[in-house]
Amino acid sequence: MLTTKAYAAASATSPLAPLKIQRREPGADDVLIDILYCGVCHTDVSYARGHFPGPGFPLVPGHEIVGKVVQAGGAVKGYKAGYLVGVGCIVGSCRHCAECGSGQEQFCDGLVPTYGGFEADRKTPTFGGYSTQITVDARYVLKIPSGLSPAAAAPLLCAGITTYSPLRHWNVGKGSKVAVVGLGGLGHIAVKLAAAMGAEVTALSRSEGKRADALLLGAADFVATANPENLARLRGRFDLILNTVSAATDSDLYLSLLGRDGTLVLVGVPDAPLTVNPFGLLMKRKSIAASIVGGIRETQEMLDFCAVHRIASEIEMIDIGQINVAYERILKSDVRYRFVIDMASLR
Amino acid sequence: MLTTKAYAAASATSPLAPLKIQRREPGADDVLIDILYCGVCHTDVSYARGHFPGPGFPLVPGHEIVGKVVQAGGAVKGYKAGYLVGVGCIVGSCRHCAECGSGQEQFCDGLVPTYGGFEADRKTPTFGGYSTQITVDARYVLKIPSGLSPAAAAPLLCAGITTYSPLRHWNVGKGSKVAVVGLGGLGHIAVKLAAAMGAEVTALSRSEGKRADALLLGAADFVATANPENLARLRGRFDLILNTVSAATDSDLYLSLLGRDGTLVLVGVPDAPLTVNPFGLLMKRKSIAASIVGGIRETQEMLDFCAVHRIASEIEMIDIGQINVAYERILKSDVRYRFVIDMASLR
Repeated sequence: MLTTKAYAAASATSPLAPLKIQRREPGADDVLIDILYCGVCHTDVSYARGHFPGPGFPLVPGHEIVGKVVQAGGAVKGYKAGYLVGVGCIVGSCRHCAECGSGQEQFCDGLVPTYGGFEADRKTPTFGGYSTQITVDARYVLKIPSGLSPAAAAPLLCAGITTYSPLRHWNVGKGSKVAVVGLGGLGHIAVKLAAAMGAEVTALSRSEGKRADALLLGAADFVATANPENLARLRGRFDLILNTVSAATDSDLYLSLLGRDGTLVLVGVPDAPLTVNPFGLLMKRKSIAASIVGGIRETQEMLDFCAVHRIASEIEMIDIGQINVAYERILKSDVRYRFVIDMASLR
Repeated sequence: MLTTKAYAAASATSPLAPLKIQRREPGADDVLIDILYCGVCHTDVSYARGHFPGPGFPLVPGHEIVGKVVQAGGAVKGYKAGYLVGVGCIVGSCRHCAECGSGQEQFCDGLVPTYGGFEADRKTPTFGGYSTQITVDARYVLKIPSGLSPAAAAPLLCAGITTYSPLRHWNVGKGSKVAVVGLGGLGHIAVKLAAAMGAEVTALSRSEGKRADALLLGAADFVATANPENLARLRGRFDLILNTVSAATDSDLYLSLLGRDGTLVLVGVPDAPLTVNPFGLLMKRKSIAASIVGGIRETQEMLDFCAVHRIASEIEMIDIGQINVAYERILKSDVRYRFVIDMASLR
């Protein structure tokens, strides 16, 4: 085993603190990665605070990993020492089911999450990217295309694919009318991606504070939702609304902004049940759906798309010692737009 | 104006009783129809009891109309005196919008409902098919194909198109796995239609009472839902679930029966809001949607499909004088499977 420096939550009420963890020695199919950067996802906070079921504690969060290959197993094709690579939310799957066969590992019942779950043996907890090294089966490793900043690319591994996948699945393209609810880590990338796909993007954010940013990110329109009357002019307008807000929101209000056959897609999932007036779905055959990350093949496609379109996350770089302050700021939506940990600070 | 015999509710608490109403003289675009049969839809009861907003009272229900053309206006093409025709839920629309242009009049903001709303002038209430004659713009009149029983075809004009349209929209075909929730007027036709489209159909009904019927109607499987444990073996099974039950049902339970990318479609819409656990949508990218009737072109397609596949409603014929008893029985789900009024009883 390899002893690796990490930052972990010892319990749901503990601040994150240094911890030595064990990584497996890389096998024939594995690469060993020196982690350079790790994005800080809202999910990290939820797991660290015990809001999601998981493997228990200690918990090492982090599934927006960019690093350098330091060693590649004998059976690994496509990666060599020195390659710049990424690891997202998935580090394993059964590889036998129809979902794995079609590159949609996110739906595999045997999915191994980068952290917050268990290895294929169903008993060894996985540890995420708040650490200096990670051993990953090369099948779940992504190439970071040249031209992308390694630090700003890190959030693409979760926030990027989480928004790219539904935009593709619901066929967003030239002329699509898309609204993005919430301009946080996910939302700000969603605006960039949808605009690059050719959509006419409207950003919906609580206050006026992010109007200028939204337009710079590529939105054609911006509406502050704190006053719902502002939304009246958008009734029936959108083909797709991507709701990136994890807090409970007014689904009926957003449904009213969809046109015929429009879909409200949740990618930030509230703890509370949704309450929906069925007539809001009925009159124009609307849908509510939810979407979770994306498969490995699609994640690579997303990274390549981002390289072509010069898309990355807007980031605020932090040292690992600032992580607990960063969590508090995330809970107050006080970040533009993603914290990324410079892992040199842990070495 | 033409004076026509009808049956009407004078208020939300009155039983239906005879009333003379006025129909317009047929214009150049109209046909005048002698009504032979009218199906009794659950919606009729809801409107008559004041549960839906509408034009007020008196209210003449009925939008499952089959009759004979007695007169056709000078500009009418395709219909002549003596033709067997149908009228469903729609008797007018704006004819200028994109929805009308694509034959999806059900989504036109200027839709004129057969009853329960207003003519294009937005002030003259429309009166439905519980009457001896009706004047209808020929654009909204359907041909009843030979080979369909006129009485058993009547319920196709609402119950048939309401279930046919979503089955088509969500691409049900050979090999699709479809569940139909509720074996009432809509559900029993949905089972027939989905089976004729090549789907493997599972009927979900509260008790065991309709098992034999369901299999005769074309279901491959039947499960009584009164004991939710019976549903365990169906987890993750279906591509599409058509929920035809108007009462509030457990959406989370039905979502659990869908496979990846499956859709739960409501065609019977409950009065109460839906409550949905968002994780039930998230993990396999599932959707909830709702669908309302269908356009005129698709209604004709459905009737032609039914003629080819020998599909019609199972009916219980009644005289108009039995309508109030029939309403009470509908509210107790005591009908197999649709009441149809023999309008000779009103002449």
